[in-house]
Amino acid sequence: MECRKCGGRASINMRQHKLPLCRDHFIEWIPAQTQRAIESYNMFQFQDRVLVAVSGGKDSLALWDVLTGLGYRADGLYIDLGIESSEYSKQSRARTETFASSNGLTLITVRAADELGVGVPAAAALTRRGRGKSCSVCGLTKRYVMNQVALKNGYDILVTGHNLDDEAATLFGNTLNWQVGYLQRQWPALEARPGFVRKAKPFCRLYERETAAYAFLRSIDYIYQECPYAIGAKSIYHKDILNRMERDRPGAKLSFYLSFLRAKAWMRFAEAQARLEFSACPVCGAPTSADGLCSFCRLKERVHERIGVSERTHSYD
Amino acid sequence: MECRKCGGRASINMRQHKLPLCRDHFIEWIPAQTQRAIESYNMFQFQDRVLVAVSGGKDSLALWDVLTGLGYRADGLYIDLGIESSEYSKQSRARTETFASSNGLTLITVRAADELGVGVPAAAALTRRGRGKSCSVCGLTKRYVMNQVALKNGYDILVTGHNLDDEAATLFGNTLNWQVGYLQRQWPALEARPGFVRKAKPFCRLYERETAAYAFLRSIDYIYQECPYAIGAKSIYHKDILNRMERDRPGAKLSFYLSFLRAKAWMRFAEAQARLEFSACPVCGAPTSADGLCSFCRLKERVHERIGVSERTHSYD
Repeated sequence: MECRKCGGRASINMRQHKLPLCRDHFIEWIPAQTQRAIESYNMFQFQDRVLVAVSGGKDSLALWDVLTGLGYRADGLYIDLGIESSEYSKQSRARTETFASSNGLTLITVRAADELGVGVPAAAALTRRGRGKSCSVCGLTKRYVMNQVALKNGYDILVTGHNLDDEAATLFGNTLNWQVGYLQRQWPALEARPGFVRKAKPFCRLYERETAAYAFLRSIDYIYQECPYAIGAKSIYHKDILNRMERDRPGAKLSFYLSFLRAKAWMRFAEAQARLEFSACPVCGAPTSADGLCSFCRLKERVHERIGVSERTHSYD
Repeated sequence: MECRKCGGRASINMRQHKLPLCRDHFIEWIPAQTQRAIESYNMFQFQDRVLVAVSGGKDSLALWDVLTGLGYRADGLYIDLGIESSEYSKQSRARTETFASSNGLTLITVRAADELGVGVPAAAALTRRGRGKSCSVCGLTKRYVMNQVALKNGYDILVTGHNLDDEAATLFGNTLNWQVGYLQRQWPALEARPGFVRKAKPFCRLYERETAAYAFLRSIDYIYQECPYAIGAKSIYHKDILNRMERDRPGAKLSFYLSFLRAKAWMRFAEAQARLEFSACPVCGAPTSADGLCSFCRLKERVHERIGVSERTHSYD
C-alpha cells in the first residue's frame, strides 16, 4: 500500500479514513489531528500551563510528546500507585522518568502511599474493595490527586491520554446502563468548576492502534504491560465487544463516539441531575457531593483505621 | 429444576428473574406479565377496540392469543406481502387464517399487491431498493397499511408483537448512531397524533425465547422460518451482539432496555426534533413530513411507472 501523501511505502492504514500513510507522514498526521481536536473542542491555548497525567503507558507518553512537539507548555504528573505485582509501578515510573529527563521536561511525582499510608492495592484490600475492585480505589485516588496537584500548582488544564477506544468503551458502558449523569458529563473537554480544574482529552478521536503506532514509530520506551489488576475489568469486556464491531465495520467506534457528541446538541438532561451541589470537604477542602468528608478522605480514613494511623493529615497544605 | 410456584418439574427458567416455572404456571405467567406491561405503560383498556398486526410468526400469534385470553376485544390484521420465495407469504397467511378461524376471531387481510400493483420484493426490485433493501420497502408498506386500516376501521389501538429482543436490537442500533429522533420516539406505547393511530407493544419486556416457549406450549401452529429477505439485516447483527452479552450476563438485554426507559425521564430532546410537522398527502390523505406525496404514495408511484399503471388510485376511500 502507498502513502496517500508521498506515494512511498505505507506504514499504517487508517481504515476508517481510508488513509494509508508512511512513517514520516503518519508522525506528522498524529500531531495535526491532535491540534484539530484541541481547537474543535476549545481545549486549551498555547499560553496555558498544561499538566499531562502520565502513567508510563503509550497513550500518555505519546500525548506528552505530541503536546511538547506542538509547542505547548506541558509538564507531567506521575502518580506512583504502589502496584508491586509484576513490578508494575516500578517499571512504569522508570519509563516516565527516563522520558522526562531525556526530553528535558518537568515531572511531578506523587506517591499514593504518601496520601493513603499504603499503596492502592493494599488500600483496596484493607477497605474490602479488593479482588477486582481495586480499579474503583485506583480511579478515585488518581482523580483526586490529579485534580489537587493541578489546582495547587496553578495549572490551567489537566490533560489525560484517553484515546478513542477508552472513550467509546466508557460511552458503551454508560449507555448499556443509561447512566444519565455520566452521559451528561462525557465530553472531550470539561470546564473548570469551583474546586475542579479544567480537563481535556486531546486523543479522544485517535484509535488506540494509532497512539501505539505513534509511540512505536517515535521510539518512545513505554510500558507494554496492562495493569495486573485490570484483568476482567468491565471496560475490557466493553472494548472487546467494540473491537468485534470495528472488525465487522471499520470506523464503527469512531462513528459511535462522534454521533454521540453530535447528538448531545439535541439532548437535554433534566436539571436535577445537572446541578449537583458541591460543598468543601471539612478535612482537605476538596469539593464533595457527600454530606461530610469527600470520598477520598473517607477512603483514607478507612485505610488509616486499619493500619493504625489516628490523626487526619494531608499533604496539600 | 423445580417450578417456583408448585414445586413440579420446571419447563423453562427465566434466568434474568431466577424464575423456573412448569408448563402450567408459565402459561399463566406470560399473560400476567403482558397485563402488567399494558397497565404500566397505559397501553389500552378492556373497552378499547384493539387491532393486532399478525404475521403468522410466534410473537404476533402468541400476542393475539394472550390478549383474547385476557378478555380484550382484539381483531387481527394480516398483510400479505407477496413474498413468494420459500412460499413465505403463502405459509404465513395459512397459519394466520387457521389460527383465526379455529379461535373464532375476526381477521382483516390486505394484499400489498392490491396497493402497490406488485408484492413487496418486486416493488423493492423495481425501485432499485432490491438486494438487502427489501426491508425498507416492507417496513414502509406495513407501517402505512397498518395505520390506515386501523384508522379507517375505527380501532382505538394498533398492537404489534415486538418482543424485548426486537426492542433492544432497535435501541442498540439507534444508540450506535445516536439517532436522537428515533431514541425520542422509542417507547412501549405511542400516543395517537393527527393521522396516526395509537400504537403499543405489549410484549416489549418479554424475551423472544419466552414468546416462543409460550407459542410452543400453547400448541400454536406458527411459521418457524424467518423472512427469506431478512438474511444479513442490520437488526440481526445487533441481535447477535446482544445475544452474546446476554450469554455473558443473563438479564443484560432487559436491563439495557429498562434502564433506557427509566433514563428517558431524565433526558429531554431538543424541540426542533420533537415537533416534526406533518401535512396531509395530496393523494391518500395520510400524514407526511415530506413536501408533497407521502413516502408510500411515492413508492407506489415509482412502482406504477415501472409496471405501466398510470392513474393514481388507492383503496381506502
